[in-house]
Amino acid sequence: MNVHFSKRAEGLKASEIRELLKLTEMPEIISFAGGLPAPELFPVSEMIDVCKNVFLNDGESALQYSSTEGCKELREIIAKERMAAAKVNTTYNNIAITTGSQQAIEFSAKIFVNEGDTIICESPSYLGALNAFKAYNPNFVEVPMDENGLIVSELEKILKSTSNVKLIYTIPDFQNPTGKTLPDDRREAIAKLAAEYKVPVVEDSPYGDLIFEGTRHPSIKSFDKDGWVIYLGTFSKTFCPGLRIGWICASPEILEKYIIVKQGADLQGSTLDQKITAQFMKEYNLDLHIKDIIKVYDRRRKLMLSSIDKYFPKNTSHTNPCGGLFTWVKLKDGLDAAEILKDALKENVAYVPGGAFFANGGHPNYFRLNYSCMSDDKIVEGIKRLGKVLSKYC
Amino acid sequence: MNVHFSKRAEGLKASEIRELLKLTEMPEIISFAGGLPAPELFPVSEMIDVCKNVFLNDGESALQYSSTEGCKELREIIAKERMAAAKVNTTYNNIAITTGSQQAIEFSAKIFVNEGDTIICESPSYLGALNAFKAYNPNFVEVPMDENGLIVSELEKILKSTSNVKLIYTIPDFQNPTGKTLPDDRREAIAKLAAEYKVPVVEDSPYGDLIFEGTRHPSIKSFDKDGWVIYLGTFSKTFCPGLRIGWICASPEILEKYIIVKQGADLQGSTLDQKITAQFMKEYNLDLHIKDIIKVYDRRRKLMLSSIDKYFPKNTSHTNPCGGLFTWVKLKDGLDAAEILKDALKENVAYVPGGAFFANGGHPNYFRLNYSCMSDDKIVEGIKRLGKVLSKYC
Repeated sequence: MNVHFSKRAEGLKASEIRELLKLTEMPEIISFAGGLPAPELFPVSEMIDVCKNVFLNDGESALQYSSTEGCKELREIIAKERMAAAKVNTTYNNIAITTGSQQAIEFSAKIFVNEGDTIICESPSYLGALNAFKAYNPNFVEVPMDENGLIVSELEKILKSTSNVKLIYTIPDFQNPTGKTLPDDRREAIAKLAAEYKVPVVEDSPYGDLIFEGTRHPSIKSFDKDGWVIYLGTFSKTFCPGLRIGWICASPEILEKYIIVKQGADLQGSTLDQKITAQFMKEYNLDLHIKDIIKVYDRRRKLMLSSIDKYFPKNTSHTNPCGGLFTWVKLKDGLDAAEILKDALKENVAYVPGGAFFANGGHPNYFRLNYSCMSDDKIVEGIKRLGKVLSKYC
Repeated sequence: MNVHFSKRAEGLKASEIRELLKLTEMPEIISFAGGLPAPELFPVSEMIDVCKNVFLNDGESALQYSSTEGCKELREIIAKERMAAAKVNTTYNNIAITTGSQQAIEFSAKIFVNEGDTIICESPSYLGALNAFKAYNPNFVEVPMDENGLIVSELEKILKSTSNVKLIYTIPDFQNPTGKTLPDDRREAIAKLAAEYKVPVVEDSPYGDLIFEGTRHPSIKSFDKDGWVIYLGTFSKTFCPGLRIGWICASPEILEKYIIVKQGADLQGSTLDQKITAQFMKEYNLDLHIKDIIKVYDRRRKLMLSSIDKYFPKNTSHTNPCGGLFTWVKLKDGLDAAEILKDALKENVAYVPGGAFFANGGHPNYFRLNYSCMSDDKIVEGIKRLGKVLSKYC
């Protein structure tokens, strides 16, 4: 066979994260590579009754086709509860359901970006977004970050000097991969720049509710007066990722395009999963559930950071996330975390090498660690093993 | 606001079917416009226990992230049961789960078609596929059909005379919108032509199991020796559309591209819905359930066709589907079914005008009728009303 794929498909490679996850499925490996929520915190027993109630209430509707934009009841709950938590005053009319945030990320490139157009993203940024964007052959410009995230003056410089900027992609809360969080004044400034330069901002906020220190920051969307900010939310990190329920909150003109693109992409998401999610939110208080999650993740974070300080060589550094799932480790210049990973796997411990999180490559001396999905003793043991491996290099 | 969308998004319009469905949600309208399965046949009470068993077996896994290609257990069932019914001998390694067939259709254009490349499709063809393909700005060439579907000699002429053909899209079983079914020798001939001209065939078969007369035809994929046929299946018409479980069966080289594209598009489909579907298939016999569906749809088909013969003007004609959900009505030349629909809606009856099913437009004197989702008395009453409207024009 000699199959001719399209130009966009020819260049697509399997994601490093997914390939790694396959390697790390072996039970003897302590993997800090994934970004999985802790499954022992899923409300499994509650879900039995929730599902039963969905079928008893209106089982036929739950199993039938429904609208592309999603079930109204769930969109109302999202507007009233989740968007209010992000300090956005909105209604279900501005909400559409997507298959996780990932689908909305991919749609964003499809909707705004022609080949060769510029996407501005953080340096580093979420690998899954960069991979989705790459299918549209954009030009990436990376905004430098300091310890508080994206530097606004650098963003402005780029906007001033770059033609055909069609999208700004940012993860303001406990960023993937760095764990950094943007201060409120920078959020406001980004919303203003978007309106000034007439460039849509995709605000990807999967971790905004998972706060260990301080209170929830207002979203960039909450400062958006003219509709240039597109907010992406998800229940994957606060409820259950297996249901794949994410959402977009955007102005009507923009939201309509997302809905039309979704119509062609898959007609609609699962009716059943939307009804189950809405029913759960009616029967239980998600914010109380989030508090339980935070308690566990915060303990694991502290344990991981103190273990790093104890076992890692002194010339490595790491971020201090105040929420979310990740910390980001910097090795001394000249080291290659992808190379070192091979050694780490021999010691049965894994992480994600940082290079793939930079849109234009480079920066091999970083890696990402996840602390949400691992028991206390494995965190200590895994970091100890990793420290031993790193000591050979640093 | 003056938003600049990408070229591909600029041209996208909401689907006629979806916009119509909104109109026809009013309870007083008898709508033959949709393509919905009959909800009263959904196994609602069985699903309560099926879901409970999923959560009791391994609830944490059912709510967690899982692999992009889909849950192994479900892929095994699909290979052993559904693909065997289509006379394809395969294993789970050649199966990937998608969000309905629609997602696999959209991916097919993304994977194979550059701007300006040619897609060959039937004349007419499934509106939702044409809309999904249009985002990739292809050139469409329509293959004429006779009463048995796509004419193979015409397909060969097109393949001989057209450069850059990247995809052949066909619905061989009880086609949407015509209800026509391709004889076995044509299926074999299409598989041979695909290999000869090295052009992938996307065989979309949502209705293959819904047979009223005769036995199930072998799929085009069953005649595929070199891997040029990509088979798309779905549980939307035989189980529940609300769970959005479809699948691709393809050779490894091609399937891999679909999986990578799905990774960027939404990471994966719902883990829960996949587990529920697999659990249902383990506890119940889907083929027995399909027999129950067929009994009802066959009765409704007969009733619709006999009502058409009774109430429609004599200079209209219709197809005689031996399975599936649709019949296709031809009005005399010069009439416009989209215009007549406005009158029909005044009489509280609806259908889908045929023009949008032709990739390159034209043919306004056709419309599609669905008989699966309507009670006997409403079928008779609706066709009677429609006959009255048509009589004014014919």
